[in-house]
Amino acid sequence: MKALQYTAVGEEPQVVEVPTPEPGPGEVRVRVTAAGACHSDSFVMGLDAEQYKLFGYPLPMTLGHEGAGVVDKLGAGAAGFDVGDAVAIYGPQGCGQCYQCAQGKENYCPKAAALGIVPPGLGRDGTMAEYVTVPSPRHLVPLEGLDPVANVALTDAGLTPYHAIKGSLPKLVPGSSAVVIGAGGLGHVAIQLLRALSPATVIALDIAQPKLDLAKDVGAHHAFLSDDSAADAVRAVVGAGGATAVFDFVAFQPTIDLAQAVTGPEGDVVLVGVGGGQARVGVLAAPYDSTIRAPYWGSRSELFEVLDLARAGTIHVETETFSLDDAPEAYRRLHDGTLRGRAVIVP
Amino acid sequence: MKALQYTAVGEEPQVVEVPTPEPGPGEVRVRVTAAGACHSDSFVMGLDAEQYKLFGYPLPMTLGHEGAGVVDKLGAGAAGFDVGDAVAIYGPQGCGQCYQCAQGKENYCPKAAALGIVPPGLGRDGTMAEYVTVPSPRHLVPLEGLDPVANVALTDAGLTPYHAIKGSLPKLVPGSSAVVIGAGGLGHVAIQLLRALSPATVIALDIAQPKLDLAKDVGAHHAFLSDDSAADAVRAVVGAGGATAVFDFVAFQPTIDLAQAVTGPEGDVVLVGVGGGQARVGVLAAPYDSTIRAPYWGSRSELFEVLDLARAGTIHVETETFSLDDAPEAYRRLHDGTLRGRAVIVP
Amino acid sequence: MKALQYTAVGEEPQVVEVPTPEPGPGEVRVRVTAAGACHSDSFVMGLDAEQYKLFGYPLPMTLGHEGAGVVDKLGAGAAGFDVGDAVAIYGPQGCGQCYQCAQGKENYCPKAAALGIVPPGLGRDGTMAEYVTVPSPRHLVPLEGLDPVANVALTDAGLTPYHAIKGSLPKLVPGSSAVVIGAGGLGHVAIQLLRALSPATVIALDIAQPKLDLAKDVGAHHAFLSDDSAADAVRAVVGAGGATAVFDFVAFQPTIDLAQAVTGPEGDVVLVGVGGGQARVGVLAAPYDSTIRAPYWGSRSELFEVLDLARAGTIHVETETFSLDDAPEAYRRLHDGTLRGRAVIVP
Amino acid sequence: MKALQYTAVGEEPQVVEVPTPEPGPGEVRVRVTAAGACHSDSFVMGLDAEQYKLFGYPLPMTLGHEGAGVVDKLGAGAAGFDVGDAVAIYGPQGCGQCYQCAQGKENYCPKAAALGIVPPGLGRDGTMAEYVTVPSPRHLVPLEGLDPVANVALTDAGLTPYHAIKGSLPKLVPGSSAVVIGAGGLGHVAIQLLRALSPATVIALDIAQPKLDLAKDVGAHHAFLSDDSAADAVRAVVGAGGATAVFDFVAFQPTIDLAQAVTGPEGDVVLVGVGGGQARVGVLAAPYDSTIRAPYWGSRSELFEVLDLARAGTIHVETETFSLDDAPEAYRRLHDGTLRGRAVIVP
Repeated sequence: MKALQYTAVGEEPQVVEVPTPEPGPGEVRVRVTAAGACHSDSFVMGLDAEQYKLFGYPLPMTLGHEGAGVVDKLGAGAAGFDVGDAVAIYGPQGCGQCYQCAQGKENYCPKAAALGIVPPGLGRDGTMAEYVTVPSPRHLVPLEGLDPVANVALTDAGLTPYHAIKGSLPKLVPGSSAVVIGAGGLGHVAIQLLRALSPATVIALDIAQPKLDLAKDVGAHHAFLSDDSAADAVRAVVGAGGATAVFDFVAFQPTIDLAQAVTGPEGDVVLVGVGGGQARVGVLAAPYDSTIRAPYWGSRSELFEVLDLARAGTIHVETETFSLDDAPEAYRRLHDGTLRGRAVIVP
Repeated sequence: MKALQYTAVGEEPQVVEVPTPEPGPGEVRVRVTAAGACHSDSFVMGLDAEQYKLFGYPLPMTLGHEGAGVVDKLGAGAAGFDVGDAVAIYGPQGCGQCYQCAQGKENYCPKAAALGIVPPGLGRDGTMAEYVTVPSPRHLVPLEGLDPVANVALTDAGLTPYHAIKGSLPKLVPGSSAVVIGAGGLGHVAIQLLRALSPATVIALDIAQPKLDLAKDVGAHHAFLSDDSAADAVRAVVGAGGATAVFDFVAFQPTIDLAQAVTGPEGDVVLVGVGGGQARVGVLAAPYDSTIRAPYWGSRSELFEVLDLARAGTIHVETETFSLDDAPEAYRRLHDGTLRGRAVIVP
Repeated sequence: MKALQYTAVGEEPQVVEVPTPEPGPGEVRVRVTAAGACHSDSFVMGLDAEQYKLFGYPLPMTLGHEGAGVVDKLGAGAAGFDVGDAVAIYGPQGCGQCYQCAQGKENYCPKAAALGIVPPGLGRDGTMAEYVTVPSPRHLVPLEGLDPVANVALTDAGLTPYHAIKGSLPKLVPGSSAVVIGAGGLGHVAIQLLRALSPATVIALDIAQPKLDLAKDVGAHHAFLSDDSAADAVRAVVGAGGATAVFDFVAFQPTIDLAQAVTGPEGDVVLVGVGGGQARVGVLAAPYDSTIRAPYWGSRSELFEVLDLARAGTIHVETETFSLDDAPEAYRRLHDGTLRGRAVIVP
Repeated sequence: MKALQYTAVGEEPQVVEVPTPEPGPGEVRVRVTAAGACHSDSFVMGLDAEQYKLFGYPLPMTLGHEGAGVVDKLGAGAAGFDVGDAVAIYGPQGCGQCYQCAQGKENYCPKAAALGIVPPGLGRDGTMAEYVTVPSPRHLVPLEGLDPVANVALTDAGLTPYHAIKGSLPKLVPGSSAVVIGAGGLGHVAIQLLRALSPATVIALDIAQPKLDLAKDVGAHHAFLSDDSAADAVRAVVGAGGATAVFDFVAFQPTIDLAQAVTGPEGDVVLVGVGGGQARVGVLAAPYDSTIRAPYWGSRSELFEVLDLARAGTIHVETETFSLDDAPEAYRRLHDGTLRGRAVIVP
């Protein structure tokens, strides 16, 4: 089968021919109908050789941790789906047995690392291929009623902001406000999620005008350039009390500083991007009882919830479609920031 | 192998010889080291032929839905445990794939009935045998550090009150009160759980003095006879505001009436027993915003939590031990109400 | 000043001339700019002489528990507002000192009854007059930016459904459903609240087609006649899992029966209307862990939240306006069910 | 009357004779029966002249923000208490009218600063005097059944850790762990609160052996010296998953570093001390979804809850008693760290 593989550190990914994988006992093989390209992939391909080794990633490695497809073959003992069922793939896979996994929070499985369990495309072969295997049927969620190409990105670009927002929902009461920094692949979904899940006033910040236009199109009440005047612009909307929650999908030092500058007492700063900045928190040096946290991806049941929102027509992902052969071009466009929304590879 | 089976409606259960079960693909066979006897079993054996059929139960059926043991054999594709691992069995098994099961709430799986998935001993062969199979490794929770005989009853007599109490915990703040009606197998664990999990004043009610003594022994602040003066006795403790939560492990009409009579505004009445009584709720006919609910068993992660409490020495189950051959006697004693705590069968 | 008073049991209310009240120490006098007419008033005027006495209501009594106005005079020691400030009146007043009142839950003040503290228009002179006094400035919420006539009904017809819904919000996740029975004064606000606060699918039921039209206009996804086929119609939308929450703004026996018939496991039945029906709840006789409760009005902070929603343009109340002299006609129309939304008296 | 006043920056406080205050309209005068000495007072007296001015504090200023007493005189319009009622004083006073105050969260009142509303002893005359006034009866909580001397410290040394812990309670499930850094005035109450409110394993850290002894006496499961080996000692107890919550009552840089070093994924670091250290938080540079926050004091209803715990005998404060004349000595002992628990002044 064809697969898009990262074959050498620092090189562009290549479309190569590889053997079609066989599902082992308990596993499921999925014929991929759509795979999303993500900044995390760029992050991985931006690591130098030493860092790449430190993360424990193999070479070559088929890319892709967002995937949708059709159940193709069930390994021995795998049940709960029939061949032909349309599914979305739950990526942040865990051991399935521990306390966290017993709640479906496989994204926080404390045993995964030691057991060598990693997401597809982030340590083992991923979804940018004609076929991919998942360790268990529980890593599949029914896609029924949803177009795979239009919705595959929800498995990360939807699930990650959903999980990030869900942790702050109890604070997003009437009269509250939410700031989204970075209106790209994840951010433009975050805006829709905030509108669907809360009555908060939503303010988008970005450095690019087309992203601000997109932010307004998908429901932001306000959209401002993320420059030196951004903090004042936000404060003019939210007032002296400060913002209730700030979701930073960039997380460079300047955006983290901005996030902290506008957050009010009891507010939340939520770091999602992998920009590498750091927040500083101290008594009398931060608003009373404001919190900072950096969540990761989402739980199994949250993926059900995200797909339910899509089914209700409440959220959608802006996508541009590429063939597997054109996948390297998708990553170039992603790197250059010229995509509107998410790049989806259709094998 | 030997098994305790219910063989004919209305008859006492029998110890019989049956084939040792083979684990199918994905399944696990457990060598049973302890099995608990429960009022639910008596309830099942008290059904008439028509009702029994209505519940869809087979004949013969090996009894027992509380089980602990040692992993004995893994079916194809079953992983996560090694042969010899000590485990507790999670009974309220579901499909494992749906939204509820993705949160570990298999006790509320909406697909189980249609798929013919039932707990061991309540529709298929149960734990009162030398061996039992479970559909998946996810139905096993590590027992490490806990004695199986002393703790097997936690899989129901611990998990059920834990789940019932957990739903009311946010209300059980300092100054609150919790009433436990019925200080038997489940009730005497409920008292310990309330003391471990909350600062509520705990009041136990029972019709038998030995149960009231047990209630005090395990931590109840007050213990009153559940007679005509019980409501006044409770009110004398909790004051005009009424009780914050009442857990009714009997649920006959008189106990439900009592529960409603003493519950205050915003309080909870939680029905756990299978006595068949009914509460009535109406506007202006119940305290403002008090709730009534009837939960069922518990979730996978809650079983971890219950076992963690036992590991910390915070809760323990009073038990009397019987051999498999003496199991019919255990049910006689259970029926007569002469057990102190829980009967445990050691095959 | 002029006031609309209930002067004799069974008679229509009268517009009469009464002395303008003086604010005592700590009190505030408000010049009324709008007062809403409510089914509760009809309920009060529908009581017979004995019941009326049982409720402890005086005669004559100025009607009206929904009020907006302008601060007119501050009693000694009353502070926090200036004369001329536009305010909404918080009706379910409590003692202000107890544990519940310390959280602003004056609607559940356990001391109010004993202290003779009652809402305006429900035990003491109310808002249907040129002036009304409130016991404390804390019973006033700033109305800034909101038209009093358009928004006065939010103090009950907004606050009551808001409080009822808020208790169920954690369950109203993506994929959930909410049923509103009765799309009148409170129900049509409830529909808007559910849309603003949750991603639930909203289904409205009513016996009158114009109310169903209103329900759709204000955002219900579905609207069905509340007849014998209603349960099936709801089930066709929500599926086998049942409804997540049912808000019954009627609460006659048939609507309560309907509510229970369509609610699923872990679902909520919330009784708000004063129809006098009763729900029955038992183990195995109700969906697992479903709850029933009957909340009352709302808290101080919830009134802030409701007004914030109005400020954001998220909710509005359909109103018909009447002069104080025409107030009796408003109650006639309310009784006949011919109002679209809420009747507001403008003194 | 006599009062302990801070009269000049850098000087020891003085016992002086000042006029007995008169309660203005709405205010209440309390005859002080007990007043607690707190590290915050030392912090204030440690400020240099410029900082002291920046905080807006007057000179002279009567010290003391912990107070208990007896209602002595009610200003015009003040109600809800009778002269002679025993009360505790709620210190973090707010405007009483805003959204936060409407929930009793006066500690987070956003208007207090602009309105010049400050706690007693922290900007205006405090409790270390024979009499003190409070702005409103709502700043008094009934002390009934509690000794003022033994319990006055609960108004801060109880309320502050209670509020800090309450925010983390949902995470403190069975199997969780809580670390308390600093087992002094607040810390030794925190240990008792954690034991009363949760099933968490409690680990105390301090640099002084007598404080570790106290920690064990009041219920800590483990107590370790807060030296270079502390992180390893904690990890040996909590395992690879890390601590669930760390409450830092010191908050110097080394303790904050320690707190972050032992906290696990989804864990909480809660900074309470005023040591001036700072935490750093970044994506991939902190455990997934762990949070950091710095709460302040507590809400009105939380003070009720703390006093209810004391009434139940669940918590108590270690105290040493001093006369008003000996109050300067109490602060010397506090500064030297030679107090066991809290110093209480009895005027």
